[in-house]
Amino acid sequence: MNICVTGLGLLGGSFALGIKSKRKDVRITGVDISIENRATAQRIGIADEPGEFESAVAKSDFVVIATPVSSVAELVRKALDRIKESAVVIDLGSTKGLICQEVAGHPRRGRYVAAHPIAGTENSGPESAFPTLLSHKMMIICDREKSDPEALRVTEEIFKDLEMKISYMASAEHDRHIAWVSHLSHISSFALGSTVLDKEKDERNIFNMAGSGFSSTVRLAKSSPDMWAPIFSQNSRNVSEALDAYIKKLQLFKKIIDENDEISSHNLMKEANEIRRILTGILKSE
Amino acid sequence: MNICVTGLGLLGGSFALGIKSKRKDVRITGVDISIENRATAQRIGIADEPGEFESAVAKSDFVVIATPVSSVAELVRKALDRIKESAVVIDLGSTKGLICQEVAGHPRRGRYVAAHPIAGTENSGPESAFPTLLSHKMMIICDREKSDPEALRVTEEIFKDLEMKISYMASAEHDRHIAWVSHLSHISSFALGSTVLDKEKDERNIFNMAGSGFSSTVRLAKSSPDMWAPIFSQNSRNVSEALDAYIKKLQLFKKIIDENDEISSHNLMKEANEIRRILTGILKSE
Repeated sequence: MNICVTGLGLLGGSFALGIKSKRKDVRITGVDISIENRATAQRIGIADEPGEFESAVAKSDFVVIATPVSSVAELVRKALDRIKESAVVIDLGSTKGLICQEVAGHPRRGRYVAAHPIAGTENSGPESAFPTLLSHKMMIICDREKSDPEALRVTEEIFKDLEMKISYMASAEHDRHIAWVSHLSHISSFALGSTVLDKEKDERNIFNMAGSGFSSTVRLAKSSPDMWAPIFSQNSRNVSEALDAYIKKLQLFKKIIDENDEISSHNLMKEANEIRRILTGILKSE
Repeated sequence: MNICVTGLGLLGGSFALGIKSKRKDVRITGVDISIENRATAQRIGIADEPGEFESAVAKSDFVVIATPVSSVAELVRKALDRIKESAVVIDLGSTKGLICQEVAGHPRRGRYVAAHPIAGTENSGPESAFPTLLSHKMMIICDREKSDPEALRVTEEIFKDLEMKISYMASAEHDRHIAWVSHLSHISSFALGSTVLDKEKDERNIFNMAGSGFSSTVRLAKSSPDMWAPIFSQNSRNVSEALDAYIKKLQLFKKIIDENDEISSHNLMKEANEIRRILTGILKSE
């Protein structure tokens, strides 16, 4: 099976390494606008050969688009224009609504499967990729009824080879939910990092006192702006709503602290402790 | 050496387990207002024997107060009233300014050393304690000039036995800095957990889509409200200032997203990426 991976970063690279470790019959052509990424991907074994998008897509059985979401719809359409009749195109973007809308009218829409893996780290680029990133993680397939059953079957087989759990959802619902449990936590972390870095300009050595709790909360602030700026744009309505609720909660917390209302402060935290139930679930599933 | 540990939770328990693993000559008396915690602490080897505060303090060479910060000043004063002439009292609270003020007038102030270890987890209670929690972590000693040189020496020897790095700071400066790199990140995490839990009431199964990034950001929301409510009260002015800056940053981020200003969004995240430098430093030091 010839697989074309376009976008040789954390997700595309890990997909390639993962599927190569599971199936002997795959040959990966690596496509990336960065010459450096293409070279790195080949050197570290993500791609068997580098390729140009149009020719690589034309000869592939399976095309994975793993670029920033701003370029996904266009690349999916271009790929659908060029693929063999039996080939399939998927993407791995963190937004699904706009992409699905923008490819909706394509005559070969059925050959496209919209997917989003609930997996990632704060690192980016081909060198951050590793073969087990996707193992045992959830892959959400959106608007499955828009994909040909056979294209869906081929895709699901590959996801199963990667030992992923598959889940189905409407693209609009996906975007609404993911804003709260992924996009918002990235913003909270970027903003926290930025706030404390601003403060460091006045109070040097402030970070000498930072420990593992701070590290954990601010870890996602290391994430790639190239990936995340288009995600926030594409999902702006849902992200803005989630962010509004978060700001209101923080304002309430601030009011409680300013009023020295220790009972309300305690209650708010007690409610937040309920997150333990959720986190236990996430850990179990990984 | 007879050591009295008052407050047999994560920090007090880990202090006791740590020093017992490093020194053979110590005997720990465990004091806690909870009968259950006292029993657990003895069962799992934190304390060699349970004790009542007044009598335990009177017979000890070294007294550690590891209770919520709201009770620290009073317990320090009571301990100073009762200890042997050569004994030392320390606390491990996350705020230092108010505590130092409240013990300032005590005739035996010199026997007290105000300390704060940059160490912790999101768990609490004696069963969360482990002997290496404090190893290689930073212990901040505040207002050292207020402690007798000999009391300081005894204390520092114990911290060195625990393989801690010692740092010195004025209590006011400690509270100002710790608000940004510890207290604020706890609030950001409590508020994030609480916000998404609120949303879950409308959108069930929302957490099915949460992954390791969300877990990391919201981990501190599991922390004990009994510990944290008094911390935010005691350091309310600094915490409120930090929280205000954080809310303003989030409001800016929201405005940028609402205006679909992808360049500013990218720039804000690019600046936040600088946190990588800090986190590398924290990891190296642990």
